[in-house]
Amino acid sequence: MIRSLFLTLCAAMCIHWAHAEDGSRLWLPTESNGQPAQINLKHSSPTLDIAADELRQFWHGQPVDLILKRDKSLKADGFSIRHTDKGLTLSSPHETGLLYAAYHLLRMQAAGETVNDTVVNPTYSLRILNHWDNPDGTIERGYAGKSLWQWAELPGKLSPRYQAYARANASIGINGTVLNNVNASPSILSDEYLQKVKALADVFRPYGIRVYLSVNFASPMVLDSLPTADPLDKNVIRWWKQKAKEIYRLIPDFGGFLVKANSEGQPGPCDYGRTHAEGANMLADALKPYDGIVMWRAFVYSPTDADRAKQAYQEFKPLDGEFRQNVIVQVKNGPIDFQPREPYSPLFGSMEHTPLMAEFQVTQEYLGHANHLAYLAPMWKEFFSLVPPSSIEAVAGVANIGSAANWCGHPFAQANWYAFGRLAWSPELSSGQIADEWLKQTFHMDNAEVKQMMLDSREAVVDYMMPLGLHHIFAWGHHYGPEPWCEIPGARPDWLPTYYHKADRQGLGFDRTSTGSDAVSQYPEALAKQYADLKACPEEYLLYFHHVPWTHRLKSGRTLWEELCYRYDRGVQQVRNFQKVWDKAEKQVDPERFLSVQSLLMTQARDAVWWKDACLLYFQEFSGMPIPYDIERPIHELKDLKKVQLPISNYECPTKEMLNERR
Amino acid sequence: MIRSLFLTLCAAMCIHWAHAEDGSRLWLPTESNGQPAQINLKHSSPTLDIAADELRQFWHGQPVDLILKRDKSLKADGFSIRHTDKGLTLSSPHETGLLYAAYHLLRMQAAGETVNDTVVNPTYSLRILNHWDNPDGTIERGYAGKSLWQWAELPGKLSPRYQAYARANASIGINGTVLNNVNASPSILSDEYLQKVKALADVFRPYGIRVYLSVNFASPMVLDSLPTADPLDKNVIRWWKQKAKEIYRLIPDFGGFLVKANSEGQPGPCDYGRTHAEGANMLADALKPYDGIVMWRAFVYSPTDADRAKQAYQEFKPLDGEFRQNVIVQVKNGPIDFQPREPYSPLFGSMEHTPLMAEFQVTQEYLGHANHLAYLAPMWKEFFSLVPPSSIEAVAGVANIGSAANWCGHPFAQANWYAFGRLAWSPELSSGQIADEWLKQTFHMDNAEVKQMMLDSREAVVDYMMPLGLHHIFAWGHHYGPEPWCEIPGARPDWLPTYYHKADRQGLGFDRTSTGSDAVSQYPEALAKQYADLKACPEEYLLYFHHVPWTHRLKSGRTLWEELCYRYDRGVQQVRNFQKVWDKAEKQVDPERFLSVQSLLMTQARDAVWWKDACLLYFQEFSGMPIPYDIERPIHELKDLKKVQLPISNYECPTKEMLNERR
Repeated sequence: MIRSLFLTLCAAMCIHWAHAEDGSRLWLPTESNGQPAQINLKHSSPTLDIAADELRQFWHGQPVDLILKRDKSLKADGFSIRHTDKGLTLSSPHETGLLYAAYHLLRMQAAGETVNDTVVNPTYSLRILNHWDNPDGTIERGYAGKSLWQWAELPGKLSPRYQAYARANASIGINGTVLNNVNASPSILSDEYLQKVKALADVFRPYGIRVYLSVNFASPMVLDSLPTADPLDKNVIRWWKQKAKEIYRLIPDFGGFLVKANSEGQPGPCDYGRTHAEGANMLADALKPYDGIVMWRAFVYSPTDADRAKQAYQEFKPLDGEFRQNVIVQVKNGPIDFQPREPYSPLFGSMEHTPLMAEFQVTQEYLGHANHLAYLAPMWKEFFSLVPPSSIEAVAGVANIGSAANWCGHPFAQANWYAFGRLAWSPELSSGQIADEWLKQTFHMDNAEVKQMMLDSREAVVDYMMPLGLHHIFAWGHHYGPEPWCEIPGARPDWLPTYYHKADRQGLGFDRTSTGSDAVSQYPEALAKQYADLKACPEEYLLYFHHVPWTHRLKSGRTLWEELCYRYDRGVQQVRNFQKVWDKAEKQVDPERFLSVQSLLMTQARDAVWWKDACLLYFQEFSGMPIPYDIERPIHELKDLKKVQLPISNYECPTKEMLNERR
Repeated sequence: MIRSLFLTLCAAMCIHWAHAEDGSRLWLPTESNGQPAQINLKHSSPTLDIAADELRQFWHGQPVDLILKRDKSLKADGFSIRHTDKGLTLSSPHETGLLYAAYHLLRMQAAGETVNDTVVNPTYSLRILNHWDNPDGTIERGYAGKSLWQWAELPGKLSPRYQAYARANASIGINGTVLNNVNASPSILSDEYLQKVKALADVFRPYGIRVYLSVNFASPMVLDSLPTADPLDKNVIRWWKQKAKEIYRLIPDFGGFLVKANSEGQPGPCDYGRTHAEGANMLADALKPYDGIVMWRAFVYSPTDADRAKQAYQEFKPLDGEFRQNVIVQVKNGPIDFQPREPYSPLFGSMEHTPLMAEFQVTQEYLGHANHLAYLAPMWKEFFSLVPPSSIEAVAGVANIGSAANWCGHPFAQANWYAFGRLAWSPELSSGQIADEWLKQTFHMDNAEVKQMMLDSREAVVDYMMPLGLHHIFAWGHHYGPEPWCEIPGARPDWLPTYYHKADRQGLGFDRTSTGSDAVSQYPEALAKQYADLKACPEEYLLYFHHVPWTHRLKSGRTLWEELCYRYDRGVQQVRNFQKVWDKAEKQVDPERFLSVQSLLMTQARDAVWWKDACLLYFQEFSGMPIPYDIERPIHELKDLKKVQLPISNYECPTKEMLNERR
């Protein structure tokens, strides 16, 4: 049944794609070559059938043999490809490996590359998406429509999107998905919802994808009225064991739990005087009989400490070695919160006895929502240049996927989903290689300037939003647009921009050296020394680690103030350049996606000017210096920009009309 | 009394000026030097007393003698300045000449120039403002608040602004003012209003300014229920004679009438089968006994002819020689209507037996209202380069003056009032000289870049609004912003932009050569030949005279389409450059006016982009060509720009907030 569903799906998509490109096919092949390729398969199974059908539909090359075989050089999901006199042989110890091999072939074909003999192993065995979807269909920090999961219709009705989703993920090697928000509703663990979860798991399974769930630590109290959620409480322990049994009866290959506890108001073990380890271990023990895991988030910070950047390390480092083997501590890439640039979190490399995994944010909460083109592979490669891939256990990506026809909101946002999967499999791939693959498969485009635009885009966002190590100066709540002046009476100081930029008459930036919060000391000695040295600190982290005088001279010879102005304006000019690059590519793109990206780049160009004007005019009140006169002047007045209030929630991206009306 | 009023006025203004610069002092001196200069005056009169007081208050130089004396080298308003061993002697046959001489001295002083012996005569004896003020206080195409004339308070209460207005005009040699809108309300001729007009005339008189009124041709019917306004009707003739008598009894030096008739719905002689000449002459005869004049406007066009540009000539040329001696035909500088650039009106130089006067528009109806910096002296000098000053009788300026504290809305708009006065007196002055004078007196500034900004500003507006001879493609009604696509069912074709730009798949522009409307033939032969020749026609008039193929190569080597794009973008870059120039001048300007101009330049920069994007995207629908890729891309979409509707009347300038919300 899956096979026929699959063929129907492909046929439907082919017909659809021939007529329009609304972005729904992602990077996946469309043209059936008419003549099914010769694919030989000794066994049949849902996964193997999918692999064979993909190749029959879309492979234009030599005959292919799919072979299940043990191989010492291959990990579970790994595969080998070998040329024989009859054609190609794809080989793997597991079915999913053959599925990945099939997608590998199709990827090479679309990229126009020669298929060489090769042995391919993923770096990580766990390559997982985190969906911050709520039961009501909203997606926290989601800008591509509503949640894919139609809870009201499940389990009876299965949207065709579930399979398309699974296919897309399998094609880039993603093998796990957490279905729900880390600000978790306990209801996800109710029997009613577990039936729905099972239905999804059943669709995903043949694609090699296991489901996981975010769990609310207080679930026993909410679902079954237990008087406590103390992880050492016998009844609580029993409750979770029972719940695990219930889950695995429905979903034998359920992956495990993702937990946000004692963070931003979420319940957790610390409510009962227990440690994170005690909380995690209780859950881990419940899942252990079923080979399930617990991914316990280290995103914790409380308003009582002086430097939020230090707190995850301060809370978790002492717990090193205390976690069960099936617990992975999940740590955001940086110590603050997914900023356009942050240093890496010093927890990485400091917990020698605890498996850590990195949490990347694919959805662009701080990089322009679904309006700005920002290719994030360079950000994740930057992380890997400081945190060796082999030093962590896995990577998770907070998804940018929703019910929008094009899945991700911005056509280029798809590239980040794609890049996350490719880097989760092969973190040694370069950003350029991945961009190349994606452009060829998604747009059938081989355009050096468009590729360069992608590679430059993250840095452009840094430039026009938060250059030189600035961070967390965006608008309250929805996080779209600049608000470095934000003042909200009674708000947590560490939620306000002024806490982070600390602008005053002397200068700008957060002193994290020994004269300040000394957060640098959490880094390895050599790095700490470099970061702490005003002259040696990489300029991209300058205002992250130092409070720098406005008149301080940087490498360029410009003062801090001048360099700030120059960077913001450079970001604006970069986006205008992207507009030129994209317009030049018009003939290479279908009209629908061309116009969509063109329109979004206009919004991005206007937003870049908005960010630049807001930040420079506000910081100028402290620097007291003129914006260098060779720089394009602001076209907004600060008092007007301060009035901008976008009428959006944390689950929405502002529309062009909203933005037009406001700045 | 006038003298004490005057001193009080000056004192009040001095105190005011010491504290803030809100633009209210215009270009006039503020610092009383404490020690009154030694000014010798043999006679006393209101005018002479003003002249002497101005010098006593503000002159810092040698003692001055004011002498009334006939002089063959001096016209009525002319004056001479001679150095003697005792000081300076100012001499004129008339009191007003001495008043102008006094202002001349003060102008030289403020400009830091040496006063040489000189003989100064005005080119025109009539140097007149036209106010388009309505009785209800609104000003048609007025963007600086309400009408200065407080009709409800007159004649009993005299606003101090009346005297300040008179002083400002006298300082630049303006000696006449038409108080009311050419779309005239008959009520201005009622006894009630004539009393108010008299009160104003009394204030203006000592400053050498005579009042004039716009009259509605149907006044006899409206005010006294005559059944007709036929200029040949005995009762009508008698009515006007009686009205003249009434006026001159109140205002012995009343100047005369300004008439808009049979134009845009205004009543006139043609309603009765009479000619313009017959209508004008009837009024002229009524005013003749009192030495009054009639200024009869040639701004006529009807929707039945194929080319509006031809109609004034077609209607008036045949009437050459038929007007009374005390009629002057008042002709707008160009054949269309005060566009950022138009050729001169071919009526100039073609009516050998009729005195003509030029009507310039000082208020910026088509050049950005009170939001855009556009120094118009270059426009008027351009006119004089084609129409020798000596070939016309007088010049009128449609005023940009209102109740706003700074009189004109935009601080730099004052320069156009000033320049109009200076050119009405001395059309041989250069735009640069006038800008120099004005900057020194108004801002105490000697800044070459700011001066150059002024000199470049008109051309920048042409570039970003209507380059290469485009005209009349602005928004319906209020005329602010671009609307080249404007379509209004049932509207007069010659009120719609498409009539003027005639964009189609082949090209752009209005064919006014022999293959089109042949409007060129109304020009002198050599000029007509040049304009008619696609290659010889000055490019600034190209699309005014020709329908030009998009692919036609211009002098630059670019195609028409490319050049259009280049010009629009050049205008945008120019305004951005103005912003830099002005910001650099910050230390040379008081904060209040600095910030005001800075803010307005931001609006202008945004408007320039709006104009560019709207026009290029719209015309691109016809050219089918890409905007050259070295040009900054649009940041608006045409469909969004088409939705822009500014909620303003013809009497208002859009506020920054309105504009922010809409584009």
